[in-house]
Amino acid sequence: MQSYPSFLLENAVNQLAKLPGVGKKTALRLALYLLKQDTKDVTDFAQALLMLKNGVKYCKVCKNIADTDVCQICSDSSRQTDVVCVVETIKEVMLIENTGQYKGLYHVLGGVISPIDGVHPSDLEIESLVLRVQEGHIKEVVMALSTTMEGDTTAYYIARKLAPYNIALTTIARGVSVGDELQYADELTLGKSIINRVPYKN
Amino acid sequence: MQSYPSFLLENAVNQLAKLPGVGKKTALRLALYLLKQDTKDVTDFAQALLMLKNGVKYCKVCKNIADTDVCQICSDSSRQTDVVCVVETIKEVMLIENTGQYKGLYHVLGGVISPIDGVHPSDLEIESLVLRVQEGHIKEVVMALSTTMEGDTTAYYIARKLAPYNIALTTIARGVSVGDELQYADELTLGKSIINRVPYKN
Repeated sequence: MQSYPSFLLENAVNQLAKLPGVGKKTALRLALYLLKQDTKDVTDFAQALLMLKNGVKYCKVCKNIADTDVCQICSDSSRQTDVVCVVETIKEVMLIENTGQYKGLYHVLGGVISPIDGVHPSDLEIESLVLRVQEGHIKEVVMALSTTMEGDTTAYYIARKLAPYNIALTTIARGVSVGDELQYADELTLGKSIINRVPYKN
Repeated sequence: MQSYPSFLLENAVNQLAKLPGVGKKTALRLALYLLKQDTKDVTDFAQALLMLKNGVKYCKVCKNIADTDVCQICSDSSRQTDVVCVVETIKEVMLIENTGQYKGLYHVLGGVISPIDGVHPSDLEIESLVLRVQEGHIKEVVMALSTTMEGDTTAYYIARKLAPYNIALTTIARGVSVGDELQYADELTLGKSIINRVPYKN
């Protein structure tokens, strides 16, 4: 049991240690670092976190986080509005946006179905996805979910929910990573990449 | 260049990425984690950091951090008040306190002399140490500084400053760590541990 010379320090360390991946030792290092900064810097730091929590909005359409009611992507008229990519969190939106390969819209579920973690379909933005599809404008829903048990379950659940609608339902390609040596690819991935082979292009 | 869906998120990520050892990727993970917490939790978190910066005091006597004008250690009447251990930061105070082996007082320098980093003797609490010794009550000053070039320089500087006073000036023992195999000890440490050999006690 560590004893701290100051209650305020102990309190700050305990709060910092709540962050994922931050233990008591790192938390102390962070607290002492903040203590060394100017009051203005620490105020800006704390303010940025409060503003994030209190000021951030979720896009009415795709549930991506945004500063406005409708996010930049949904309100961008140059994008393909009849294709929607279903992702788990805003992290995947950022990742896919960074590839520069996708020009459609998104739908952020907020996670995947995982009964063991207490995440049920009703906790996710699945109903709002069905409503978007119901409106009739969407032609394709691309599922970009993790290839885990939970991701696959979620994809299956969404596929069932969207079955009544006349849309193309696709999923991102699984295959050997670019730059990977074939001998190190796992069987399942290699198998999928053979089944889903595509015409050779130079 | 990463593009964020929200300016508030970008701002929070930039602030979190200022923390030592936290890159942009970790900062994004932390920001999204905070975003998922209750407003109250995030407020408590930010508040704890602000209170630390604005509320914490430095002990008038030893410069350790404290919630009061004089820290717990300096105001503890059961401690040996004529021995002062000189340390770099409050981290070392906490480390030495945790050993339970030391019952004297401390003096926190706030760093070590390091001209290359712009830390000069006047930036450290050396003058206040000399004043404490001048008062005449202190019989021994134990230096517990890093065995780096900077630590050694600081120890030498302090030794010169305290030379005019009739006190014992000691330094913590350097030697082979408890639990270390002798064959892996470095030469310098092994040399020091032979020079400073002590009577064998069962």
